[in-house]
Amino acid sequence: MTFIEQWLRTDIRDIKAYNVPSSKNMLKLDAMESPFGIPENLQPDFLDCLKRAQVNRYPDANAEELNTTIRSLMDIPNDLGVLLGNGSDELIQLLAMACNSGDLIMSFEPSFVMYEMISKFSHLNYEGISLNENFEIDLDIAVKSITSKKPKLIFIAYPNNPTGNSFDNEVIKEIIKSTDALVVLDEAYYAYSEKSFMDEVSNFSNLVVLRTISKIGFAGLRLGILVGSQDTIEQLNKLRLPYNINILTQASANFLLKEKKNIHNNAKTIIDERGRVFKELSLISQLTVFPSQANFILVKADNINSLNEFLKSHGILVKSFKDGSKLKNFLRITISKLQENNTFLDCIKDYYGKS
Amino acid sequence: MTFIEQWLRTDIRDIKAYNVPSSKNMLKLDAMESPFGIPENLQPDFLDCLKRAQVNRYPDANAEELNTTIRSLMDIPNDLGVLLGNGSDELIQLLAMACNSGDLIMSFEPSFVMYEMISKFSHLNYEGISLNENFEIDLDIAVKSITSKKPKLIFIAYPNNPTGNSFDNEVIKEIIKSTDALVVLDEAYYAYSEKSFMDEVSNFSNLVVLRTISKIGFAGLRLGILVGSQDTIEQLNKLRLPYNINILTQASANFLLKEKKNIHNNAKTIIDERGRVFKELSLISQLTVFPSQANFILVKADNINSLNEFLKSHGILVKSFKDGSKLKNFLRITISKLQENNTFLDCIKDYYGKS
Repeated sequence: MTFIEQWLRTDIRDIKAYNVPSSKNMLKLDAMESPFGIPENLQPDFLDCLKRAQVNRYPDANAEELNTTIRSLMDIPNDLGVLLGNGSDELIQLLAMACNSGDLIMSFEPSFVMYEMISKFSHLNYEGISLNENFEIDLDIAVKSITSKKPKLIFIAYPNNPTGNSFDNEVIKEIIKSTDALVVLDEAYYAYSEKSFMDEVSNFSNLVVLRTISKIGFAGLRLGILVGSQDTIEQLNKLRLPYNINILTQASANFLLKEKKNIHNNAKTIIDERGRVFKELSLISQLTVFPSQANFILVKADNINSLNEFLKSHGILVKSFKDGSKLKNFLRITISKLQENNTFLDCIKDYYGKS
Repeated sequence: MTFIEQWLRTDIRDIKAYNVPSSKNMLKLDAMESPFGIPENLQPDFLDCLKRAQVNRYPDANAEELNTTIRSLMDIPNDLGVLLGNGSDELIQLLAMACNSGDLIMSFEPSFVMYEMISKFSHLNYEGISLNENFEIDLDIAVKSITSKKPKLIFIAYPNNPTGNSFDNEVIKEIIKSTDALVVLDEAYYAYSEKSFMDEVSNFSNLVVLRTISKIGFAGLRLGILVGSQDTIEQLNKLRLPYNINILTQASANFLLKEKKNIHNNAKTIIDERGRVFKELSLISQLTVFPSQANFILVKADNINSLNEFLKSHGILVKSFKDGSKLKNFLRITISKLQENNTFLDCIKDYYGKS
């Protein structure tokens, strides 16, 4: 046994690192990225703001300018606090760190895999409550499970990833009311659903909302946003590493998020394309297609591995799931621009002999 | 009691958030930043490389190009592994997370405060071994303490911050040999000492070296570097959040770190200035000045608060220490460019009536 094998926490030894598949020269429809780069007309001002960033200085530890911009873009009420992370991942980790080791984190399944991974990394237990066959929450089962197991944290992705649906608003409220846990509404895909619990944060002391700029055109910048009461954010802020948002992300996001119209227009394009792709896929009888309020669509089919290999061999990368997973017969396709969506649609039609 | 007060870990409730003092319009000699920005002649290519970064895409999870550049800049042997963090802070946190909760982290005191803060955040115990009055390690005391307390991790800053000295090489080796702990040699200030344990990593399976680009001109980018055996890095990498290094930091660092000559020349300037500032300060009889192998100098004096207030009132920000701290009679001054150092020297001479 090597030094590190005997040194490392035993529960980490056996797990595998999070795997990001190679995507070189592929059409990337796997990671819910926005296909829209920075518009040509904004480039000069964008570069000018990067030029002014003093990379030899530490970034503003409180990212004050960026905070103001985010409050405006996201219509965050003044009485709420904002905590920024190096992506949502870091904020999920920070929330986990705020718990006592051995505490329980719960979420619904299938959902975002990082809830479970980060729980484990942070010495916490994790338990997923299964969604029903329509990927909805069964309120009775959920409340029973939560009441008996007393989690410290509950993550609810809204809309849910990778299923694409938004759980019933009233069901979520009942869950928030049923528990002493901190409930984290992860609204990563908010731009594509426009449904939010932001206005409810003031009504529930145990509710916080998580957002990200990754799905609206800025995945490369790594910026997650946690919104809660001033009091909650002030306490959680103690656990934040002081210079967690680098200076170029602060400068870029501060500049780019002011372009609200551009961001909204791009989201509108994706929503329209999502409708079109949904319709086209629904015409393929071999596929079950799930309605989505996010920038991706989940589909189910027999022999999905073969379809996935076909797409890959034609240079198209979509998200597949592990063999042991509940979603082993599913693929998740990120919605992109018209032309890229057509490339995908042509390929899948070709596979099913519909072209 | 508010929701968060009863919800949060009790040990976090009472601590205060890491405080970064406001430095607006101040001459910043408090944070060991390099005073050198990006040279004018590199700006066009630098901005061009930022322009090419696709901010709508997730960053390369393995930062492969940047890894190659770092290996070259830092002369990292091929048989070693490299792990990148969002600043050293994130890597310290990752190392802490790799321990079992309740494990002990040890370091020497006074040293970098984040070792203790991050230990606490990560459910670990922390104990500092006091340095002697010359800020050196007493090997007997250290080995006894380590043997009886069995830490899981030992941090050694080399050179040490905030004292500026590099501990004896042989003493450090004895410590590494004396323990089953993972020993982390934090070489944040390597550029200003040129002494390193990098070549020893292959000789000790329980040794890793930590570096950063914060002190050589790129604090704003947030990039820490952990070097260990391939095996050690591969295991620790499991705990890394997949997209922890944003795309602009990857692009910038990859470009800027290739300018080795520029980096080395800047370091040389600081080393020369350090010598000059040391001499000038040594002429002030009221000050005790400590020799430094880093880009800062520690000084001791009676009534240091009054000196600090005088400097502040003249727009100069240096690092002071809390009243309860062992270093309450000390100030730490970052070495800057000639003109800025002169501004500081003139001011301190003025205070002591030497001008």
